[in-house]
Amino acid sequence: MMTMTTLVSSRSPAGLGEANRSGRKRRAILDAATDVFLKSGYLGANMDEIAALASVSKQTVYKQFASKETLFIEIVTGMTSEAGDRVLNEMPVPNDNADLAEYLRHYAEKQLTVVLTPRLMRLRRLVIGEVSRFPELAKVLYESGPMRAMTALATTFERLTERGLLAIDDPLVAASHFNWLIMSDPLNRAMLLGDEAIPTRAELRRHAAEGVRVFLAAYGKQ
Amino acid sequence: MMTMTTLVSSRSPAGLGEANRSGRKRRAILDAATDVFLKSGYLGANMDEIAALASVSKQTVYKQFASKETLFIEIVTGMTSEAGDRVLNEMPVPNDNADLAEYLRHYAEKQLTVVLTPRLMRLRRLVIGEVSRFPELAKVLYESGPMRAMTALATTFERLTERGLLAIDDPLVAASHFNWLIMSDPLNRAMLLGDEAIPTRAELRRHAAEGVRVFLAAYGKQ
Repeated sequence: MMTMTTLVSSRSPAGLGEANRSGRKRRAILDAATDVFLKSGYLGANMDEIAALASVSKQTVYKQFASKETLFIEIVTGMTSEAGDRVLNEMPVPNDNADLAEYLRHYAEKQLTVVLTPRLMRLRRLVIGEVSRFPELAKVLYESGPMRAMTALATTFERLTERGLLAIDDPLVAASHFNWLIMSDPLNRAMLLGDEAIPTRAELRRHAAEGVRVFLAAYGKQ
Repeated sequence: MMTMTTLVSSRSPAGLGEANRSGRKRRAILDAATDVFLKSGYLGANMDEIAALASVSKQTVYKQFASKETLFIEIVTGMTSEAGDRVLNEMPVPNDNADLAEYLRHYAEKQLTVVLTPRLMRLRRLVIGEVSRFPELAKVLYESGPMRAMTALATTFERLTERGLLAIDDPLVAASHFNWLIMSDPLNRAMLLGDEAIPTRAELRRHAAEGVRVFLAAYGKQ
């Protein structure tokens, strides 16, 4: 009987509907909160506005997210991880030298295109501006952003070294060199000069190719 | 007679005293404002507090600086230019290959040590957090910070290419690669993970040596 009840409450159409509704509300709150945070900053954002924009009560917001900080951490993690997923997914590791440069250029262009968006730039500026008040937020951004990308790259570089395609002693150092050769120049321009400084697709392609050339000069097999 | 008067008014001890007093007040206001901005952020800083800390009247503050924004731009320019001066001064360009790697490592270590201070990191975070409200401030930081460093490096790289010590087609691209190979990893950690993430002197030295190795593999004469 106990089992039955459990099954009914978790599997009946009514139960599923409840779960879906709750999921939809959660999604609506996250979307609304993202807009409000990006527009007004962390301190400027308020929970009433978020609730109104999501068409839920403030009570519902607090039922889903214990505090404004919890909600913001969820958004930072979500946006950064989603960007990371888009960069890191698929990408089969090449088997021979012919493909290697092309593989690295493709990866670099993808990472540049995914990260250099006005929304992610705004999020990054917002989080950096709040480091002294909310160090936890920036830590989350660092770990689910550059740190995650560099760790994944290091694993790939290790495999490529085993296959004899790269000559790398310290994969994490090489991953950091690759990551920042590719990301730094356009990222710093965008961070400091604003969204208009985000390069065009063609500029990003040229920039990626130059970074890959430098990387392979240092880490490629001669 | 006219000349006499001019001479008297600009050179008399009284005139000099006046200029000195004004210069001292200006310096005191800038020092006080730097502390207040770094502590409270741009919006949080207020001119009464700055005047009180500098032991001058608010009227004197406004006589020297037309607005809070003018004052902040002066501070951003001052702090970044001063750091730039310390990195770029002296540094005689080497004459042969034997000195080249040492020269680049020395330059890199100096730049890392001068830039990676809690005060400059706090300034950079503050300015980045205000990009949407005050884009001018971040532009000043970019131009008197990384842009100035990269332009100066490009000139040096051009000279080194003429002397046959480097093989560089586009000195500005090479300068950007060098700059970010050296600065990015520790700068991003410090920006996002806070002051405790500023590396030790020994770590910076190792990091500089690794960056220089990569740079010379791509741009050195084989």
